[in-house]
Amino acid sequence: MSSTEAPPAAVPRSVFPVAPDARYFEDYHVGDVYLFGPVDVTQEEVIEFARRYDPQSFHVDPAAARQSMFGGLIASGWHTAALMMRVLVDNFVSTVAGLGSPGVDQLRWLAPVRPGDRLRMRVAVTEARRSQSKRDRGIVRSRVEVLNQADVVVMSVEAVSLMRCRKPGPV
Amino acid sequence: MSSTEAPPAAVPRSVFPVAPDARYFEDYHVGDVYLFGPVDVTQEEVIEFARRYDPQSFHVDPAAARQSMFGGLIASGWHTAALMMRVLVDNFVSTVAGLGSPGVDQLRWLAPVRPGDRLRMRVAVTEARRSQSKRDRGIVRSRVEVLNQADVVVMSVEAVSLMRCRKPGPV
Repeated sequence: MSSTEAPPAAVPRSVFPVAPDARYFEDYHVGDVYLFGPVDVTQEEVIEFARRYDPQSFHVDPAAARQSMFGGLIASGWHTAALMMRVLVDNFVSTVAGLGSPGVDQLRWLAPVRPGDRLRMRVAVTEARRSQSKRDRGIVRSRVEVLNQADVVVMSVEAVSLMRCRKPGPV
Repeated sequence: MSSTEAPPAAVPRSVFPVAPDARYFEDYHVGDVYLFGPVDVTQEEVIEFARRYDPQSFHVDPAAARQSMFGGLIASGWHTAALMMRVLVDNFVSTVAGLGSPGVDQLRWLAPVRPGDRLRMRVAVTEARRSQSKRDRGIVRSRVEVLNQADVVVMSVEAVSLMRCRKPGPV
């Protein structure tokens, strides 16, 4: 292409190219972008989750929520994180190579999530490197964004996963 | 006391000194340390949460979990975070001054949480400052650690809350 031509827009994939039970460290590449979902947010589930884990009035009581700064019921941020995790487990995580996660960074709740919202999860692999101490595994970092039906990013987080390699490398 | 005497160990408080509906920004002070709980982790709840939000085999299937690197069923890290949130809502959060949270940093899953564990949450206020742009509110940062019955820190996180002030200050 000529130098004045714009590069093609990266179209996120919606399906991981390797089956969950054949997915190893080597299948995650920096620059890969996925868009998974949708998942629908229901009022019933918002209230049920919050009653158990985050019973603040604007998460559990529609009338009180209308009077709050949010103007209506919103999902607990931890509920949104849990919905994200489910989508990642269903679409992105390996069932054979996962070695857990040491944690996440910069979890941000950027906009309210409301009953009736339809969420999608955009996952961009930002780092994929072999462990320097253990030759059987690698570290995959991803930036995950949760988008609503208006393409507003309602949540973002930097996630880290440890994963077995298909072929152990040199240390 | 003499100069050779050790300072008294800081004893965390287990009850917030101001009622939830009278609690404002001014009631959170840097250096305050609380220890809340306990909360018991049951196998039933571990599996129920994970079936819905994090159905990896070592969270939902006791037999598969025994064969995993974890040697038995462990709670989803998001479940541990949700249990922490419930304890914070019950013990630390204001019901009148809360303006939500922009997010958390450095969420770390440091050790497995297993059915039968009894968790407590240690909360240390690390920053409390008035907003520079909005005189009616302040920002409270806390380091939260989740401890098990052996006093092992199983999770930690840096939390941020926005809170109304009892008395608006100068901008």
